[in-house]
Amino acid sequence: MDINCDMGESYGNFKIGNDAAVFPYITSSNIACGFHGGDPVHIRKTVSMALEYGVRIGAHPGYPDLAGFGRRDMELSETEIEAMLLYQISALQGMTQSLGGSLSYVKPHGAFYNRIARDTEVAKVVFKTMDLLSPSLPLMVLAGSPAETLAREKGRPVIAEAFADRRYEGDGQLMSRKKEGAVIHQAEQAARQVVSLALHHQLTAANGTRLHIQAQSVCIHGDNPQAIEILQAIDERFATEGIQKGYGS
Amino acid sequence: MDINCDMGESYGNFKIGNDAAVFPYITSSNIACGFHGGDPVHIRKTVSMALEYGVRIGAHPGYPDLAGFGRRDMELSETEIEAMLLYQISALQGMTQSLGGSLSYVKPHGAFYNRIARDTEVAKVVFKTMDLLSPSLPLMVLAGSPAETLAREKGRPVIAEAFADRRYEGDGQLMSRKKEGAVIHQAEQAARQVVSLALHHQLTAANGTRLHIQAQSVCIHGDNPQAIEILQAIDERFATEGIQKGYGS
Amino acid sequence: MDINCDMGESYGNFKIGNDAAVFPYITSSNIACGFHGGDPVHIRKTVSMALEYGVRIGAHPGYPDLAGFGRRDMELSETEIEAMLLYQISALQGMTQSLGGSLSYVKPHGAFYNRIARDTEVAKVVFKTMDLLSPSLPLMVLAGSPAETLAREKGRPVIAEAFADRRYEGDGQLMSRKKEGAVIHQAEQAARQVVSLALHHQLTAANGTRLHIQAQSVCIHGDNPQAIEILQAIDERFATEGIQKGYGS
Amino acid sequence: MDINCDMGESYGNFKIGNDAAVFPYITSSNIACGFHGGDPVHIRKTVSMALEYGVRIGAHPGYPDLAGFGRRDMELSETEIEAMLLYQISALQGMTQSLGGSLSYVKPHGAFYNRIARDTEVAKVVFKTMDLLSPSLPLMVLAGSPAETLAREKGRPVIAEAFADRRYEGDGQLMSRKKEGAVIHQAEQAARQVVSLALHHQLTAANGTRLHIQAQSVCIHGDNPQAIEILQAIDERFATEGIQKGYGS
Repeated sequence: MDINCDMGESYGNFKIGNDAAVFPYITSSNIACGFHGGDPVHIRKTVSMALEYGVRIGAHPGYPDLAGFGRRDMELSETEIEAMLLYQISALQGMTQSLGGSLSYVKPHGAFYNRIARDTEVAKVVFKTMDLLSPSLPLMVLAGSPAETLAREKGRPVIAEAFADRRYEGDGQLMSRKKEGAVIHQAEQAARQVVSLALHHQLTAANGTRLHIQAQSVCIHGDNPQAIEILQAIDERFATEGIQKGYGS
Repeated sequence: MDINCDMGESYGNFKIGNDAAVFPYITSSNIACGFHGGDPVHIRKTVSMALEYGVRIGAHPGYPDLAGFGRRDMELSETEIEAMLLYQISALQGMTQSLGGSLSYVKPHGAFYNRIARDTEVAKVVFKTMDLLSPSLPLMVLAGSPAETLAREKGRPVIAEAFADRRYEGDGQLMSRKKEGAVIHQAEQAARQVVSLALHHQLTAANGTRLHIQAQSVCIHGDNPQAIEILQAIDERFATEGIQKGYGS
Repeated sequence: MDINCDMGESYGNFKIGNDAAVFPYITSSNIACGFHGGDPVHIRKTVSMALEYGVRIGAHPGYPDLAGFGRRDMELSETEIEAMLLYQISALQGMTQSLGGSLSYVKPHGAFYNRIARDTEVAKVVFKTMDLLSPSLPLMVLAGSPAETLAREKGRPVIAEAFADRRYEGDGQLMSRKKEGAVIHQAEQAARQVVSLALHHQLTAANGTRLHIQAQSVCIHGDNPQAIEILQAIDERFATEGIQKGYGS
Repeated sequence: MDINCDMGESYGNFKIGNDAAVFPYITSSNIACGFHGGDPVHIRKTVSMALEYGVRIGAHPGYPDLAGFGRRDMELSETEIEAMLLYQISALQGMTQSLGGSLSYVKPHGAFYNRIARDTEVAKVVFKTMDLLSPSLPLMVLAGSPAETLAREKGRPVIAEAFADRRYEGDGQLMSRKKEGAVIHQAEQAARQVVSLALHHQLTAANGTRLHIQAQSVCIHGDNPQAIEILQAIDERFATEGIQKGYGS
């Protein structure tokens, strides 16, 4: 099972997360591209760290809203979505190549990620745009979302993703961050959710519904204060259960 | 003689220059990369137009200062310069490739351009950074500047540039925009300056000094209200004198 | 009849509108506050010009979206709306006072203006916020909108506004800028619309519906290329019809 | 002795300092104005907290450089300095008044503060600008700097400030943050420096020089990880030595 985390979101003197502590535990890093977070200096440093730790690199483009950290939905035109994606992915791709690496995937950020998950018109624009860059570059999307279905129908590569530290609604959508309990802070509970996803492709929603979720990657949030504890708990559980970490394993 | 112009500097509803009218006259376009000007939508549209007109594309990175249009000098560390260059050039490179084109050169913008021209320590950082992206990608620099000398010594490809619509100081530096007369607004005068550069590698400074300038490209500013008139006057003079337009010609 | 225009929206080297040419024709100026447009230097210069011409000054706060010019709707929380309003109005108020003037009203900008016009929950937050600054400072709102009704019910001062150069839908809403014909470019047609509003409190919608609109102020857009022609046509018509320009006249 | 701290510098999801923990210990708060840090929501919340704790409020304007946190020097024109000051101070003043408070002083931030301390031309522009807002509003400046001398000569109110957690050069300037040892992290050492300033108006520079410094306020940096320890150590020492906290005491 692949373990991914949002990285490189610090901006100048404004620090987010604890990237140096998280890298040893993850197998994929979603690196900010400068719009919702991430200035060039932090992006470059984070790409270097990912290469050093042998962690896969994904571009993590977001809405152009630094003050809102890309977590407020915006009404953008098709042209605006296409251009902001090309710009951000290209920036990360070139910086990664300049350090001897290459992009393994793209994972949209925050409100943009949620919009793609539920709005297939926007998902279509995103797939079309990614084809301009590389038809073989996979998009990471919410496992079980209409966007995943659409990609599978079109034969477009995607990585289906579930969340270690977020609660789900009964319909399989992520619970909004505005609701109490949206983020899981107990390490053991998050680790159990990941093991259940890895072994049984199942997860219990906030309302008790048993969801079937086929995920290839699991996300932990780096700005969750319990991130390291959760990652350690996952490692222990994976060792006990004999689950391999890493993409495609 | 190559004729270059800064393009794609509009930002959302804020328009700069008249790109559609300028493209038919130029042979190289320096396309903004989003820091001093240029949002992703305008950048993408400008790259498309350049490809349509068969005009060479150069990345035009600037200081991270939209309010100052990259024309105020900033004290950036070596790490900051390196990262902001990698980010901006990569963004433009990827967007250009996604539309089927490729970057022909890099031309720094505004106060950053001037800093490179006079400060060889900064020029060294820029050359080192460009080597990370591509050792064969030329940097456009002020003809006769210490930066050009440094590049020639190191065997680094550069394009030596002179200005059609800017006056020079007696020492070969550009006259500061803060001084009266820094920008040439008379089309005939600008055209004469270009022809003199093309045929005699000479130019008359503001104080009357005869400067020897060996330039491979000449710049016209798109936000000069007389830009089109100047470009037309150059075309007429070039026709009369039998000078070919285009890089390397 | 009061004639208002959005002013001071230029941002550094990025120019919007033609403020110097517009000031002689208007009686109220909505001055940008730095979020959708307007940097401190342009704001200050515009306040000075308004005072010089004896034109009323209104704060013109917008969404924090320079790239979108405040014309893209954003999902902001009540706390975010309240804080961004206090910040922007305060900035303009202090700058106006430092030059010896005072604020006469507040007119929200773009997508924020439209949101207030149709969403009474947001309108309530705005009225509550303005009471923190000054209960007697009027808000300029779309004439006939639910926001106007709400303010009248609460006894809150408002200025009901109609548009000279925008077409209306049959239900009294402004036609979206995304639709063809949303902006009126013919000076005579705009002037007729204003005279009809002034004399008969009537206006013909795009679908031919005759709308009853009681407006105290009429807006002309400064980035309409025909702004000056429209303003001159209004002046001529007003002279013919004996209509006084100015607020409260 | 007045104890001041930079507050309200968080920006959206990007947190700086630990304002809630610091407020109980300080007597003056320098509240960010949105340019180097501080979004309207955090500014408003911080003003509320200052009023709640009975802590004096100062506007803390900085260079327009969020990515550089206002710590990189910028070449701004007189007009730009004047306008950015009026804008930022006005924003904070209005927000403070809307919550029932009033501004007690202005303290410039970071590289702008250092520029004022050493460049009397810039200091003159700042004093002239502040007179437009209020001739009785004091500016907080580096104790012993040419800016303090200039203000005393002109009869302009200033608050002379020293630093609890920064080392000084032998000439009385602050040691640059780029140098090792510029920031004092040992609580006891910082507390001793403050007590020495309060009782003997003296301080030992990095090179051992004994400096005479007459300060009315002492600054602790909120992003110093030892801020709370330092504030507690100061409280203990003040209790032992019988020094009163607070401005004018």
